Amino acid sequence: MSIDIDAVKTYLLGLQDTICAALAEEDGGQGFLEDSWERPGGGGGRSRVLEEGPVFEKAGINFSQVFGEGLPASATAHRPELAGRSFQALGVSLVIHPRNPYAPTSHANVRFFIAEKPGEAPVWWFGGGFDMTPYYGFEEDCVHWHQTAKAACDPFGADVYARYKKWCDEYFYLKHRDEPRGIGGLFYDDLNEWGFAQSFAFMRSVGDHYLQAYRPIVARRKDQVYGERERDFQLYRRGRYVEFNLVYDRGTIFGLQTGGRTESILMSLPPYVKWRYNWQPQPGSPEAELYELYLKPREWLA
Amino acid sequence: MSIDIDAVKTYLLGLQDTICAALAEEDGGQGFLEDSWERPGGGGGRSRVLEEGPVFEKAGINFSQVFGEGLPASATAHRPELAGRSFQALGVSLVIHPRNPYAPTSHANVRFFIAEKPGEAPVWWFGGGFDMTPYYGFEEDCVHWHQTAKAACDPFGADVYARYKKWCDEYFYLKHRDEPRGIGGLFYDDLNEWGFAQSFAFMRSVGDHYLQAYRPIVARRKDQVYGERERDFQLYRRGRYVEFNLVYDRGTIFGLQTGGRTESILMSLPPYVKWRYNWQPQPGSPEAELYELYLKPREWLA
Repeated sequence: MSIDIDAVKTYLLGLQDTICAALAEEDGGQGFLEDSWERPGGGGGRSRVLEEGPVFEKAGINFSQVFGEGLPASATAHRPELAGRSFQALGVSLVIHPRNPYAPTSHANVRFFIAEKPGEAPVWWFGGGFDMTPYYGFEEDCVHWHQTAKAACDPFGADVYARYKKWCDEYFYLKHRDEPRGIGGLFYDDLNEWGFAQSFAFMRSVGDHYLQAYRPIVARRKDQVYGERERDFQLYRRGRYVEFNLVYDRGTIFGLQTGGRTESILMSLPPYVKWRYNWQPQPGSPEAELYELYLKPREWLA
Repeated sequence: MSIDIDAVKTYLLGLQDTICAALAEEDGGQGFLEDSWERPGGGGGRSRVLEEGPVFEKAGINFSQVFGEGLPASATAHRPELAGRSFQALGVSLVIHPRNPYAPTSHANVRFFIAEKPGEAPVWWFGGGFDMTPYYGFEEDCVHWHQTAKAACDPFGADVYARYKKWCDEYFYLKHRDEPRGIGGLFYDDLNEWGFAQSFAFMRSVGDHYLQAYRPIVARRKDQVYGERERDFQLYRRGRYVEFNLVYDRGTIFGLQTGGRTESILMSLPPYVKWRYNWQPQPGSPEAELYELYLKPREWLA
């Protein structure tokens, strides 16, 4: 199978449809609003957002296809020599912020890049993954999340889950807090050594496993009773999400650097956030437990 | 006058005291809490924070003196050749977030850097300024703010205000929003061409004029009646403040890069923030007026 950008695009648009339909059903509210947009420099996207739903306080699922003249350094970690090439980038990116503090935030992204230069062979690669950020820790949720991540990887090699799980722990890390963003999942980038067909199959496997990983967790947490204390902690912890996305996230920085559509890029930011100076959880509390047991890289399937 | 770091330090500590005392009085609540901290790499600071006061929802005023081995690129815009030198940085930095949406957020910073290398003369410079970010526009407030900024500059040369006012407009700009952070004020950096004594006098003039610029504005807005609509807009606009500080601000990035004390650096973030997808103000509303008349670089003293 040679490089087939149309097949990637068709898959991504379908993935966006499937995830939106399932999450709208889980939400039980008015569903997603759609905004299509064009990028002045070339390309565009289809943003879908659900705000103030019964279950999801904010859910953003964005498809984009962007053409550009000069690939910025943030696009590829390991191939600075490609910076400056003309490129095309296609992807689906989503962040889901439930209202209930017992239901975790989740993020998924699958993307395909192709960088071209006259007289040379195109260079392409896939990247993506999914990761979860709980406010309160539930071991069974984390185990289910990682089991599903492993199921997405296993057909592609015995060590794939372990490798991309580790990369996820390393990537979603707030250096200035010395703290992971959440309990991880999968992260991969610069993937092309399997050839196009197999790499594209892996994109589909990751994309298709996201709902299986996330939906059952939301389903069992969305009606769990909570109070002001839990809500307050959720808003405080959401601040870390903002810090990560604006300071470290490669996709956010790539989007802002390439003149992407700001509202679609920043759709990932939580709807409502608090910062408090030097706050620390009470020892022995469920909030302290999150830091001690969940916000540490851990082998969930050991 | 030769380089006198102790004099700078004494001035900065006194400035922090003066500003804290005046703002605590304006607030009428419990005043500031103080945290002293040491930086593992060398140096430390004195953070003062007031949270949930009657007038100020969050006010952070931080003194710090930091020693480091390798000067990061973010420390100086125009002298990349200094990167890697050992350095000392002293400064006072503050951000004030009033509760009342009619009262603007303000920021001020004055700082002194000295970069050393064995066998070479030390290189030093001053930087700083102050700027204001209103949620609702009041022409008289903006004029007063800029008049005071000009008064701080005028003894140092006829073109100083104009130059540093322009630099402020350029610096406090959110490229991804195509929008200034607020109505500006003063910004300067890499200042040493006046010699140490005069440059230090300018630091004092900027530092000493901040309260004259800000306090009367807070005093006349802090009790102005507002409703949920104004509060909501304030929380939404505060999102821009977070975006600027985490994506662009040199001081924030310098602090995080040099292993600064995260809680003191991020003291600048607003206490309570909202993001809403693709929100636009109603044409003809006071919120639209902010964008049209105030969030544009303007000559306030023309």
